[in-house]
Amino acid sequence: MATSSMEGTHGIPLLTVGSVAYDSVKTPQGSCDQILGGSATYFSLAASFFVPVGIVAVVGDDFADQDLALLKDHGIVTEGIERAQGKTFRWWGEYGQDMNICRTLDTQLNVFASFKPQLTEEGRKAPFLFLANIDPDLQYQVLQQMQNRPKLVAADTMNFWIEGKLGALERVMNSVDALFINESEARLIAGEDRTLKAARSIVARGLRTVVIKRGEYGAMTLGPDSLFLAPAYPVEQVVDPTGAGDAFAGGVMGYLAATEERSPVELSRAVVVGSIMASFAVESFGPYRLAQIRPGEIQERVKALESFAGWEGLEKGQLPLRSWG
Amino acid sequence: MATSSMEGTHGIPLLTVGSVAYDSVKTPQGSCDQILGGSATYFSLAASFFVPVGIVAVVGDDFADQDLALLKDHGIVTEGIERAQGKTFRWWGEYGQDMNICRTLDTQLNVFASFKPQLTEEGRKAPFLFLANIDPDLQYQVLQQMQNRPKLVAADTMNFWIEGKLGALERVMNSVDALFINESEARLIAGEDRTLKAARSIVARGLRTVVIKRGEYGAMTLGPDSLFLAPAYPVEQVVDPTGAGDAFAGGVMGYLAATEERSPVELSRAVVVGSIMASFAVESFGPYRLAQIRPGEIQERVKALESFAGWEGLEKGQLPLRSWG
Repeated sequence: MATSSMEGTHGIPLLTVGSVAYDSVKTPQGSCDQILGGSATYFSLAASFFVPVGIVAVVGDDFADQDLALLKDHGIVTEGIERAQGKTFRWWGEYGQDMNICRTLDTQLNVFASFKPQLTEEGRKAPFLFLANIDPDLQYQVLQQMQNRPKLVAADTMNFWIEGKLGALERVMNSVDALFINESEARLIAGEDRTLKAARSIVARGLRTVVIKRGEYGAMTLGPDSLFLAPAYPVEQVVDPTGAGDAFAGGVMGYLAATEERSPVELSRAVVVGSIMASFAVESFGPYRLAQIRPGEIQERVKALESFAGWEGLEKGQLPLRSWG
Repeated sequence: MATSSMEGTHGIPLLTVGSVAYDSVKTPQGSCDQILGGSATYFSLAASFFVPVGIVAVVGDDFADQDLALLKDHGIVTEGIERAQGKTFRWWGEYGQDMNICRTLDTQLNVFASFKPQLTEEGRKAPFLFLANIDPDLQYQVLQQMQNRPKLVAADTMNFWIEGKLGALERVMNSVDALFINESEARLIAGEDRTLKAARSIVARGLRTVVIKRGEYGAMTLGPDSLFLAPAYPVEQVVDPTGAGDAFAGGVMGYLAATEERSPVELSRAVVVGSIMASFAVESFGPYRLAQIRPGEIQERVKALESFAGWEGLEKGQLPLRSWG
């Protein structure tokens, strides 16, 4: 299950900086206490089904060997995960009946408070880079350490940084190709109430693409000349939505890094793959369902989603319109 | 612009019972005062682009000739609109920044309070029937007046009837093929928090199809063995969402009546047509944008929506998965 030596000699196709954490989550389906989590964890596990991923992050001396092994077993390059003295980042959250709304109960930054990302020589050459949701100053530091401008750089963020560090975030937004945000974040950044208007306003700042995550409703991807609506894969039982957005981004970036593409057509396909990866992420507490995807399951869900969302023929034929219409 | 005499001799392909009203609406885009509205109005105008529609409704002696002319100009069969002494049904509503949420400020039933639907001889033979959102006892009375069981009967309803007249509503639900409801109504009927579970529970009562309207997120259509996710057409500027759900249903039922189909494949296409018709309905106060659709505009939006939501190729090829995945 480890990365093949051949892959190693080709460097790291996809690098991410983000959090590796221990999460405690309560949902209507139950609860979990201090299990493996963090944006880089969900992102890299999802992307690992497509390419080897390198993580830049920090954990404490309490970080369990088995959690590191889970990442390594997926061919994830963990050399960029610094082990610092102290405790690993911890997060406590709760979801009510509306699983689209998350309430943060507590956050303990611990070793993350003094984190200074240091890229490995291999990491600095990655052609695809994802800046997961962390302090925009740290996102920028990572971008500056890259040896060449990567082929595609994408960033995530959250309300906390939009409200508290907009200047630093704008510096990041001016330096990346794509932004992954949810609807409320898009509206907050743009000062617009309608999602489509907000997305247009953000793209007008010079971004190549903005990907608006809409939870159970899928995603909207907007570029200067493109618009794409992706359905969400309909999940029978959502256990815990934590990490869904990161798994979504991992699917998108993993697919693009594997195809070495960034055209609007490949991006629209990548976003559907992201939807599929998010659908696995929400089916268990922690990243365990995502980590245990069986061979063929991803392709099966792509085919199923096509059958749920396809309406072939309608656009090709003539509608039965009345002649006076 | 009138119905051709040939269409007349073939009877009424699609009949609806519902409200014809005067609406006063306030949205962030502005307001309107006592303009033409009502579920049967929006439904029949949307469906009129596909088939002649008959309306069963009641208006007061204050109902304007020009409003009746608007319906007739679209080939709508208005003989089933009874003119009673008194005032036409009036509704006052308000939308906030979240256009998915509507607050009813006032309702004056007026002539609708004593309405007893009476179908014409022609109406009783219609093969497609839509029971728009009115008192479920009235919906049932209409169904009982049909000469033969129509090929397809669909019904809409709302929280008011689910909470206040569940017994009568269940009698309707047990007699129709399809139910058109929004997400909160589905959850309320089923007592389930998740939309997919709620839809499954409602279908399990014996319905052929439940169509869940999700506003700007499109629609989910569920049958015993089918699931279809339809995108909403992305509207640049929503002026007034009033009537969007009725225009959606009008597009669906109009398309099905025109094709004389009710198979899952045709239903999935019909729902996309419904999305398109709803997109016109929200672009103006009242049904005026809907009434003024230019030739070709419906087909254009279908093609555009296909380009926004198509991801052709992904399901046909092999994903670039790593071999150990």
